[in-house]
Amino acid sequence: MSTAIEVRTPSANYTVHIGPGLLADLAQRIAALHTTPKAKLFVVTSPVIWSHWSERFLASFGGTQPVVLQVLAGEQYKRFSTLESLAEQLAEHGADRDSILIAFGGGVLGDMTGFLAAIYMRGIRYVQVPTTALAQIDSSVGGKTGANLAAGKNLIGSFHHPLAVFADIDTLSTLPENELRAGLQESVKAGIIRDRELFDYMEAHTAAILAGNHEALTRVIADSVQMKVNVVAEDEFETGVRMLLNLGHTLGHAIEAATRYEQLLHGEAIAWGMIAATSIAQKRGMVTSAQVERITNLVRAYGPLKPFTADVHELVSLTAKDKKNRSDSRRFILPVGIGDATVVRDVTEAELTVATEELFAQMPTREDLAEANA
Amino acid sequence: MSTAIEVRTPSANYTVHIGPGLLADLAQRIAALHTTPKAKLFVVTSPVIWSHWSERFLASFGGTQPVVLQVLAGEQYKRFSTLESLAEQLAEHGADRDSILIAFGGGVLGDMTGFLAAIYMRGIRYVQVPTTALAQIDSSVGGKTGANLAAGKNLIGSFHHPLAVFADIDTLSTLPENELRAGLQESVKAGIIRDRELFDYMEAHTAAILAGNHEALTRVIADSVQMKVNVVAEDEFETGVRMLLNLGHTLGHAIEAATRYEQLLHGEAIAWGMIAATSIAQKRGMVTSAQVERITNLVRAYGPLKPFTADVHELVSLTAKDKKNRSDSRRFILPVGIGDATVVRDVTEAELTVATEELFAQMPTREDLAEANA
Repeated sequence: MSTAIEVRTPSANYTVHIGPGLLADLAQRIAALHTTPKAKLFVVTSPVIWSHWSERFLASFGGTQPVVLQVLAGEQYKRFSTLESLAEQLAEHGADRDSILIAFGGGVLGDMTGFLAAIYMRGIRYVQVPTTALAQIDSSVGGKTGANLAAGKNLIGSFHHPLAVFADIDTLSTLPENELRAGLQESVKAGIIRDRELFDYMEAHTAAILAGNHEALTRVIADSVQMKVNVVAEDEFETGVRMLLNLGHTLGHAIEAATRYEQLLHGEAIAWGMIAATSIAQKRGMVTSAQVERITNLVRAYGPLKPFTADVHELVSLTAKDKKNRSDSRRFILPVGIGDATVVRDVTEAELTVATEELFAQMPTREDLAEANA
Repeated sequence: MSTAIEVRTPSANYTVHIGPGLLADLAQRIAALHTTPKAKLFVVTSPVIWSHWSERFLASFGGTQPVVLQVLAGEQYKRFSTLESLAEQLAEHGADRDSILIAFGGGVLGDMTGFLAAIYMRGIRYVQVPTTALAQIDSSVGGKTGANLAAGKNLIGSFHHPLAVFADIDTLSTLPENELRAGLQESVKAGIIRDRELFDYMEAHTAAILAGNHEALTRVIADSVQMKVNVVAEDEFETGVRMLLNLGHTLGHAIEAATRYEQLLHGEAIAWGMIAATSIAQKRGMVTSAQVERITNLVRAYGPLKPFTADVHELVSLTAKDKKNRSDSRRFILPVGIGDATVVRDVTEAELTVATEELFAQMPTREDLAEANA
């Protein structure tokens, strides 16, 4: 009942498996990927994930258990110091060029483990076993790995594809609901920029998806991954169409930076970014008011849009620092109707300021939210 | 009067320029390599090199001076913490995806700057301007970049080719003589493993080469680079013939590790490793005693072989940790006559122990050396 999506890029081919029950025969699935019988396996995971899933994870490995390295996840730990500690532990445990890392956790853990694999002994193999909606939908696919600097998120990293991705949706059952909802904003994004059918499906089946229905969740995640895979296949190193994946991300990253990653989850910030992009697109006549309403309603359905505190001018100025901006151009991704999007290079500070002010105008107060929950 | 060597690999093509006077028009040479007129340039250099060469280096840049980042060179600084500090400085100075780094210094500095370029924003461009014999002959060519862990040297890194290499041999004039001699051991190695003519030339022109004669030095460095380029072109990611470049390095790395990189320069350790490998090859009938004598004499001519203090058993056990060893095989590169070499996989601990004991038997005492210098 799982779905397999083939990823073909100039530098690597691999399969993304999505569905329930994948952990049950994970060892056999990984063994089938390589021909080095003595390859040592190392699991990199977080204490939270491991406390929930270690038994299920290890069951299939039988007599040859992998070495388990636990590391705190969270953006504040996604740093060189964590990478260095992990690399030293790999060396202590005798990891060599044939060794294979298994990233078992969310997006931060997958990004770091992939980056570790990219640079340990100048590159070893790794497998992604993502356990959050965000990681399953987005970050485990595409070969982007990285870590943060004080100066910004993901400012260091590599392109390094995994041997395979195993997204077991069972693991989402221990994910806090707000993280499930925030992760699904990336699926909303996928629908808006390239997949109208996915958009329609997410509108029609919101309740089933959020309740964790296996079929509905597998479909939404698989369609989102397929969209991303198609885009990445066209543009492995992000010089063209892959930029569309950044819908909502320019302002979203600014919101995350302005709030020091403390107030909103990534998907919650991206949700606001999509609302702002849609508003700019509307004023430019790229989406109708009916389309704006559908987009806004879908984002809210997987919300709620969470309030945050930041200064409009700081947000606008932070968008100029996004690393997607080369030299002096400032880019923005805008929707074109539903199911299409485009890159524009001439969004002005004035447009951005208006769109950002609108966000604050429609932002629920904490009292509104308390009332809605009552 | 400089020599240009073309490097062609599946992932990059670039030119290595070798000769005197290259700094005189460095800015124009770098400008000719790219078409991004506003590419910001960043020089990464060491205080020692910069104190000798900053004026000559900057002269050609005229009105658009590069940003200069100084960092202490030396194996103990070739760590994640240095990379992080450099990456933060790049971000502070607004380095973006179009920016170009210029590595101006020795091998450690080139390895770190190349690695920084490999991972900053998931990869930006860089140029190598090596200033030591070791860096000009060996480490600036081949695309290997990296840094050290506590657990070992170069255990993290990337393959990332420069846009070009400019090896200005004028900069060798401020290099301490022992570093010049140690670096030239890599040329001796090039002669032994693949270039009999280079070997002959280095025998016949030892005095001119060591005196820094422009023509002789340019020829030796260029021939060494050409040999390495040919090997790397055949085997970019070090899965086959490129392993031959490690002649002397398995034991050499063990000596460096056992002496904590404090007693010998890299080339001085490699010199001992070549003597040991030649001895093992002799016992296996792969080199004649006349060839052993020529090899040993040439290594000594670019020496002297410097004494070091270490335990034989520790050295032998450290060779098993060399990262060139995959899983359970132990490899060694052995000369086959002069101008050829081969990879053997069955060197026993007993053979290694004997060869290592022989090194200590022929090691000059510090008193011998003092006498020779008197």
